[in-house]
Amino acid sequence: MIDQHAQKLPVPQAAENASLMTTYHRIVILTEGASTPFLAKTAISLLRYRTDDVAAVLDAGEAGRTAQDLLSAGGDIPVIGSLDDVQADALFIGIAPPGGKIPPPWREIIADALRRGIDVVSGLHDFVGDDPEFVATAERHNCRLIDVRRNSDKETARHVAFREGCLRIHSVGHDCSIGKMVVALEVQRGLSARGHDAKFLATGQTGIMISGEGVPLDCVVADFVNGSAERLVERNQHHDFLLIEGQGSITHPAFSAVTLGLLHGSAPDGLFLCYEVGRDAVKSLEHVPTQPLAKLLELYEAIASVRHPCRVIGVAMNSRTLTVEEASQERHRVEEELGLPVCDVYRDGPDVLVDAVLKLREELMS
Amino acid sequence: MIDQHAQKLPVPQAAENASLMTTYHRIVILTEGASTPFLAKTAISLLRYRTDDVAAVLDAGEAGRTAQDLLSAGGDIPVIGSLDDVQADALFIGIAPPGGKIPPPWREIIADALRRGIDVVSGLHDFVGDDPEFVATAERHNCRLIDVRRNSDKETARHVAFREGCLRIHSVGHDCSIGKMVVALEVQRGLSARGHDAKFLATGQTGIMISGEGVPLDCVVADFVNGSAERLVERNQHHDFLLIEGQGSITHPAFSAVTLGLLHGSAPDGLFLCYEVGRDAVKSLEHVPTQPLAKLLELYEAIASVRHPCRVIGVAMNSRTLTVEEASQERHRVEEELGLPVCDVYRDGPDVLVDAVLKLREELMS
Repeated sequence: MIDQHAQKLPVPQAAENASLMTTYHRIVILTEGASTPFLAKTAISLLRYRTDDVAAVLDAGEAGRTAQDLLSAGGDIPVIGSLDDVQADALFIGIAPPGGKIPPPWREIIADALRRGIDVVSGLHDFVGDDPEFVATAERHNCRLIDVRRNSDKETARHVAFREGCLRIHSVGHDCSIGKMVVALEVQRGLSARGHDAKFLATGQTGIMISGEGVPLDCVVADFVNGSAERLVERNQHHDFLLIEGQGSITHPAFSAVTLGLLHGSAPDGLFLCYEVGRDAVKSLEHVPTQPLAKLLELYEAIASVRHPCRVIGVAMNSRTLTVEEASQERHRVEEELGLPVCDVYRDGPDVLVDAVLKLREELMS
Repeated sequence: MIDQHAQKLPVPQAAENASLMTTYHRIVILTEGASTPFLAKTAISLLRYRTDDVAAVLDAGEAGRTAQDLLSAGGDIPVIGSLDDVQADALFIGIAPPGGKIPPPWREIIADALRRGIDVVSGLHDFVGDDPEFVATAERHNCRLIDVRRNSDKETARHVAFREGCLRIHSVGHDCSIGKMVVALEVQRGLSARGHDAKFLATGQTGIMISGEGVPLDCVVADFVNGSAERLVERNQHHDFLLIEGQGSITHPAFSAVTLGLLHGSAPDGLFLCYEVGRDAVKSLEHVPTQPLAKLLELYEAIASVRHPCRVIGVAMNSRTLTVEEASQERHRVEEELGLPVCDVYRDGPDVLVDAVLKLREELMS
């Protein structure tokens, strides 16, 4: 553990970069050769949540189709074969390349964008801004390389007492890639639609690309994870509702450190327990079973509440593999088992969870 | 969370540096102007656990005294005023400077060591190896700058099944700086003294300086904390007993991320629950109460066991503020409350906890 005296207080670079995100309104999303739902998770989320800011999807092999047709999101947004075919202000890298390295065909596309003066935005662990060739090209053409995972967060958490009127809701779950970001986004939109002052806080690269506010928590140095989450909430506590994107799982063999740092740093009042129906094993670790919902609920409430009184207020079910009928049965089963409201925000909309948030506020205010 | 495909498999640099530590046998410990028990924790631990390898303590204002007299450890090891007064092979920075920056008088001492061809070893967050002046001097005089916190650990945990004959014991607790490293070291020595193949695994900078094996876990990037701990155990699982140094606390507002990543990554069979008597508030966060032992025990067992069956097998009490009589009463009180063996390893020796480890092994073997 670091000495408390050794804290530095820099302006968090991640937040600086993040705020740039919302200045782009002619985004091209790069998915070259990888336009599948599994690989292009970031692209699909951008198409869904920044539809109006996306000018095109770039994948030469699929040029001529629509985004909706190719990735089931984005409506008539065209899939193009070259930056010749569009006016763009930024190229967003929309997938994680297998092997972690940027494949050669992408390098040429990125260089092409930079030569046209188009900013390049990346969420990869390997920073484009550390690549000497890219840096030289960007400087020559007066544009930016933005790594949304880059951060210099170096503050430890201080167990801050947040503003009482700021209700903090956090999405947690049984695994990665089950919809924790989507639930937070949808409920924020549902609250805003009802006239409330609600803000989504991203904690991962895709959420940052969507919202322009957040920290790339999985890339912060371990001693500062809790602090980074605490600072994120602190600078947003003037809002009435914060919907804080979750990461990993408290029971995930690889990522539980990030999950707990976020849970303690953000000190939520309420949790959404998220799960994907049928996800019986941890993603990419097929020998590890996921934990039952009732056990997760108990663990999350116990460990969260040592920081701040907290309980699960609703369950967000991802029922993408089920029929309508099956989804309805599953929903009733879980409602009964846990005595909590349950919904799939894609299928049912977020209303049930929005109601749960408002009910919690009423309870805490009275 | 990072894509599993994006894993890199480098040789961990931390481990490389760590193994150098044990090659030094004429160590000078720098505590210039800061030879107090609170500031010189690292120095005191080096004096205690590497007594034979320490040539001197360097603090000009205290020159002429003995280490025992100045820091209550190290016997007749002299306190010196200059590197003129000793033959040294390494200068270890023995404290964390207030403010995090190396104060100017130290800079001159470090430069002086380098000019004499003496390696400099540091556990600070600010790396001496990133200082251009130090680097130039070290190169000129053919010696090394070693930052024990530096690491390039970039592997996620894979939920490895460790060798069954390798019993893993991990020290956890209610706060930082309560003796988790000391308990692991003392019990390892106790087991070795009885002829067992036991190894201490460091997870912080002081432990690494002492033992030459470990990872600076608080300085690993968040996504790789669990993985870094898992790799540490994996490459040591040929030993029969691993005593794994704990970090922070599962209930610490700032450092719980590190604690849980270590707990899940190292997958212990048994835990020592460590506490300092009278530590009612978290160190440096006086507005945050520490949690009761019974609650900690429950939380640790629940959250550890989702990775691997695990239970608390003994309590390590730090009773430094108590009289002998008071310590004895406290010990009996906790033994009764938790139904577990309790001892203060400094006062009582580690035998009670060594017995608890051997009993656990017997149970698991039968």
